[in-house]
Amino acid sequence: MKKVAIGVDIGGTNTAIGVVDNEGNVMVKDNISTPSHGDIKKYVADLSAAIKELIKSVKLLNEDLEILGIGIGAPNGNYYNGTIEYAPNLSFKGVIHLVDLLKGSFPDMQALALTNDANAAAIGEMIYGGAKGMKNFVMYTLGTGVGSGVVVDGNMVYGHDGFAGECGHTTLIPGGRLCGCGAKGHLEAYCSAPGMKRTAFEIMARDNAGDSLLADKSFQELDSKMIFDAAEKGDKVALEVFEQTGKWLGQGLADTVHHLSPEAIFLFGGPTAAGDYIFKPTKESLESHLLPIFTDKIKILPSQLKPGDAAIVGASALVWKEIE
Amino acid sequence: MKKVAIGVDIGGTNTAIGVVDNEGNVMVKDNISTPSHGDIKKYVADLSAAIKELIKSVKLLNEDLEILGIGIGAPNGNYYNGTIEYAPNLSFKGVIHLVDLLKGSFPDMQALALTNDANAAAIGEMIYGGAKGMKNFVMYTLGTGVGSGVVVDGNMVYGHDGFAGECGHTTLIPGGRLCGCGAKGHLEAYCSAPGMKRTAFEIMARDNAGDSLLADKSFQELDSKMIFDAAEKGDKVALEVFEQTGKWLGQGLADTVHHLSPEAIFLFGGPTAAGDYIFKPTKESLESHLLPIFTDKIKILPSQLKPGDAAIVGASALVWKEIE
Repeated sequence: MKKVAIGVDIGGTNTAIGVVDNEGNVMVKDNISTPSHGDIKKYVADLSAAIKELIKSVKLLNEDLEILGIGIGAPNGNYYNGTIEYAPNLSFKGVIHLVDLLKGSFPDMQALALTNDANAAAIGEMIYGGAKGMKNFVMYTLGTGVGSGVVVDGNMVYGHDGFAGECGHTTLIPGGRLCGCGAKGHLEAYCSAPGMKRTAFEIMARDNAGDSLLADKSFQELDSKMIFDAAEKGDKVALEVFEQTGKWLGQGLADTVHHLSPEAIFLFGGPTAAGDYIFKPTKESLESHLLPIFTDKIKILPSQLKPGDAAIVGASALVWKEIE
Repeated sequence: MKKVAIGVDIGGTNTAIGVVDNEGNVMVKDNISTPSHGDIKKYVADLSAAIKELIKSVKLLNEDLEILGIGIGAPNGNYYNGTIEYAPNLSFKGVIHLVDLLKGSFPDMQALALTNDANAAAIGEMIYGGAKGMKNFVMYTLGTGVGSGVVVDGNMVYGHDGFAGECGHTTLIPGGRLCGCGAKGHLEAYCSAPGMKRTAFEIMARDNAGDSLLADKSFQELDSKMIFDAAEKGDKVALEVFEQTGKWLGQGLADTVHHLSPEAIFLFGGPTAAGDYIFKPTKESLESHLLPIFTDKIKILPSQLKPGDAAIVGASALVWKEIE
């Protein structure tokens, strides 16, 4: 019997569902709309139906499958309680006991677990990706926000209340940019994709850079992919955005190193597709902020998870981790 | 048989040694000079002799004692290797294999372990102090430097190389004050006892505060106790030093919370004797830097270890932790 796991990634718009084998390959996948379900019970019913449909379809491909469990990644996911708690970007408000609700539909699953999306990515990296065999590492996910997952001695760090690993909300610049969470100067306000856009606008404003390739884009239009494309063409503003983002990110990663002394920090997400543009200044900045006992020791690595499937794959990895 | 442990605290000037019972009481203690021993072999011989002498004297008080082991706290102490590595303030240079060297003198001890002084304090807090029963907490030791120890799921976090928990070297102010380690803007440069002195001098310079109670002290003379005494008398400069130190410390503690989501953060050391002068602004600043999911959740507590004996007691706690 081939063993497989189901991964569910709950986002503000879509919930993606996939059946994943033990090498991290997505065998079949589907998705349902998240926000159209104001009612959590209706959402759980639809999610359960979609999962069952997917199990049926994958068994048509291969009858000899054992479905081990369901792993869920969700914003503000709490592993201890199996809950989603006060997630600002989801249509479900308050505390949602999702694992308990799903147990009703899947009483026979060996594992049914939930954590936040960045923790799921970290577990995915550990089970299927570049962190195989690593006992101490940290994952940063750079996207609309900045998430993170911390692994110590081979286990996820959930902390006292299940919410550890919010490294995107460390303070880089006291009194600095407004962060989405309401506080000021957090890393997420500088090193997320929207943070890079804000940096581009700051630089254009400072230099009156009407000749930049980014100068014809509105604040709503500009995204990190456009900044990368402009950097590739040698655009000064775009190149400085990467330099400056790396400086900030390196400072934040140094804080992580001083807390945890990891073997490696993995970077995942859109901005990391820029390769050396972002990795080089990040590494240089990291080293400049470190105690001598840490210099030239910490690897900064690109995630080995495939961008499109990473969220599902990460969520499914929770199942293997549970069963282990 | 009453079980006891030996604690050894290695400082730049003195090495303190004590026999500690299972409630954290120091039964007998002694100390030898650290730096007079340029030669590590001579130091180990003297340290071994002093420990044996102490064991003899405590057995005169109570014949029915079992000595379980020796725990050592030392700057740049590496738990994994039992080494002291490149400690800038010790007369021993390079990598010192202290645990291996001591094993020769104490082959029958059940436990012989070494870690850095702040980790030892954290273990002390866990075994004897205010962190009894806590699974996730962090200890900050504020003194000449700022050390820290991180506990996750009931275990010390040593990280990949044994050096985790250097939270005093997170960056508070990019490009800010020169830190003892050579980098800029680290927490230690602001929140250590010398950091508070630097803050006092900055404020006096800014306000031309010739009437401050601190204005007759030289840079070499001024210490954190004098700042506390002046604050007690209502001195404006001194009061602002505490306000500002708390603001910075709270910012740093928020970074720790975002990484680890601990139940509590304990503060230990001279500056914490100032009580509310330092705890109140620290808590306020902490809350202002936190994600909403963490607000009003994290306890900031004074260490329950007795200041005079804490280093020995913390080091001895390593033995109980090893045997557990």
